[in-house]
Amino acid sequence: MQRGKASIEFEEPPVIISSASVAGKKEGEGPLGGCIDVVEQDDMFGMENWEQAESAMQKQAADLALEKGSIRRREVRYLFAGDLLGQLIATSFGTVDLEIPMFGLYGACSTMGEALALAAMTVHAGYADRTLAVASSHFATAEKQFRFPLAYGNQRPQSATWTVTGCGAVVVGKEGKGAETKNAPRIAAVTPGRIVDMGVQDSMNMGAAMAPAAVHTIRQNFEDFHVDETYYDRIITGDLGEIGRKLLLDMMKQAGHDLTAIHMDCGIEIYDSEKQDTHAGGSGCGCSAVTLCAFVLPRLRSGEWKRVLFLPTGALLSTVSFNEGKSIPGIAHGVVIEAENAGS
Amino acid sequence: MQRGKASIEFEEPPVIISSASVAGKKEGEGPLGGCIDVVEQDDMFGMENWEQAESAMQKQAADLALEKGSIRRREVRYLFAGDLLGQLIATSFGTVDLEIPMFGLYGACSTMGEALALAAMTVHAGYADRTLAVASSHFATAEKQFRFPLAYGNQRPQSATWTVTGCGAVVVGKEGKGAETKNAPRIAAVTPGRIVDMGVQDSMNMGAAMAPAAVHTIRQNFEDFHVDETYYDRIITGDLGEIGRKLLLDMMKQAGHDLTAIHMDCGIEIYDSEKQDTHAGGSGCGCSAVTLCAFVLPRLRSGEWKRVLFLPTGALLSTVSFNEGKSIPGIAHGVVIEAENAGS
Repeated sequence: MQRGKASIEFEEPPVIISSASVAGKKEGEGPLGGCIDVVEQDDMFGMENWEQAESAMQKQAADLALEKGSIRRREVRYLFAGDLLGQLIATSFGTVDLEIPMFGLYGACSTMGEALALAAMTVHAGYADRTLAVASSHFATAEKQFRFPLAYGNQRPQSATWTVTGCGAVVVGKEGKGAETKNAPRIAAVTPGRIVDMGVQDSMNMGAAMAPAAVHTIRQNFEDFHVDETYYDRIITGDLGEIGRKLLLDMMKQAGHDLTAIHMDCGIEIYDSEKQDTHAGGSGCGCSAVTLCAFVLPRLRSGEWKRVLFLPTGALLSTVSFNEGKSIPGIAHGVVIEAENAGS
Repeated sequence: MQRGKASIEFEEPPVIISSASVAGKKEGEGPLGGCIDVVEQDDMFGMENWEQAESAMQKQAADLALEKGSIRRREVRYLFAGDLLGQLIATSFGTVDLEIPMFGLYGACSTMGEALALAAMTVHAGYADRTLAVASSHFATAEKQFRFPLAYGNQRPQSATWTVTGCGAVVVGKEGKGAETKNAPRIAAVTPGRIVDMGVQDSMNMGAAMAPAAVHTIRQNFEDFHVDETYYDRIITGDLGEIGRKLLLDMMKQAGHDLTAIHMDCGIEIYDSEKQDTHAGGSGCGCSAVTLCAFVLPRLRSGEWKRVLFLPTGALLSTVSFNEGKSIPGIAHGVVIEAENAGS
């Protein structure tokens, strides 16, 4: 149950019944391309505009996750979902056809962590037998929302990240439903993060804005469970990128923890930044969501990894706050995911 | 626990330990003015811009709710909060100083329902002894986000609503903490809503866009608990306004339920629409949040009402979705709140 100051441990860990990832062409050409369930060659996803494309991608990922788990829509009691866009419009239009009672979430790029945490909390409490966690981003909707028109072809500093076109969907359910949960990874615990504002103001260097929040949540997790980095096979941040990773490792080292060998960042994994010109790495809600479904969960299913701390990171800014000269607070939500037999 | 298709009943209902409302000048001049804890005469709340004003209002409401309950910030384990702005910036900057692990929510004007539901679910499951639910809106930030520059002085059709400048904050906690929960209202059950899209496209008539979602959640609540309108002293929608109320009553009548005598809409209560020129009524996350804290909870504390269905309603649109010709889906989250001795 309650552990330490901010964490929750699940006595009977909810299981990840099934998951699915859908992504765009560029992500398909990256290092994880072969692991992504559906790589769509048309970044418009057959729709008329970018927002509709992102909605279509959400729907596709959600439906595929259900299909892979042989679960019908009406067997899912609650949906936890979000995206980066103002008023979550990709989610509103992407999930309406699911007809599942829905909690709309905004945690910037940390949304998959927030959604997974609430989905697991809901299942473990007995409020639902199955829940669905969904998070997406799309390069073109994000550029339109936060930066410049695509046709403008603006230059980007090396500290900038590239918003992932992708969506991850995860069905979280109660143990004991038979074959469907064989080898299924378990959500053993969560450490919801708090907002950390270190005064970083450079929206082209979001790794620096988010690293302190990631450090805070990791240290909170260590403290709450009386563990350290040796407890995890991997600590997986969402989208710190190369610069954020360096900051994270430095700050953790100052706190007495060497994460060099076990830290992994979804934003670094998803692209080959040199060949793909993505600078510091990938970002967006879809970055950690796709990497979770395509790369992390399979390694937990196979038993290659026993236990990971999945830690999507979010930079809390809007064009309005940025233009008003505000800083960029960060947030990171930690989810402890274990292989089936990790505890035994 | 799980009731029917979409509801949750709490065996040991979490209690509303304390609550606070902060609002602007216009709201202070309305019918509820005398019940609002703090009516700020300066709609800038002493800040430099509207967004900062909304953040300051959130902070003030949260701190006041804690103060009224004699609760320190560190005694609150999780925060559930949201607002109407893109990327929730009023919330990010308004709650950072609380230093409480935070779940960012977006449900448009239904956010207080979503926040209360999750806060109660979290407390009842034993994940936290105390949680805080906060939702706000500000007339000027909303006009800037969704409509026209204030100085433009645009005309508004009679079906339009006026965004409430206000914030409500509610501390939800576990029963049995002694004096602090005496006469405290209880959250007995929740019926999280699903997105309902009836194809309404007029952003100046959001009552019509939201009424079908409210009808869906009310009917789901009746079905899940095998009750009807006689079970509640009031069914309180968030911000349907005059037109939405008429639609709701008509649609419910067609379904065999006459809500005329027990329906109340926060958007209709909060302003005197004739004298205050607010047309169809109030709207925004702050509308239902302020009315809950200033008007509804006191009537449950006094025992004047025994049981209400509090049902904030949200219209899921953005300027982008609107300009792309999309419809306006609605959502409504139901929270059953009872007086201390309602069940006995």
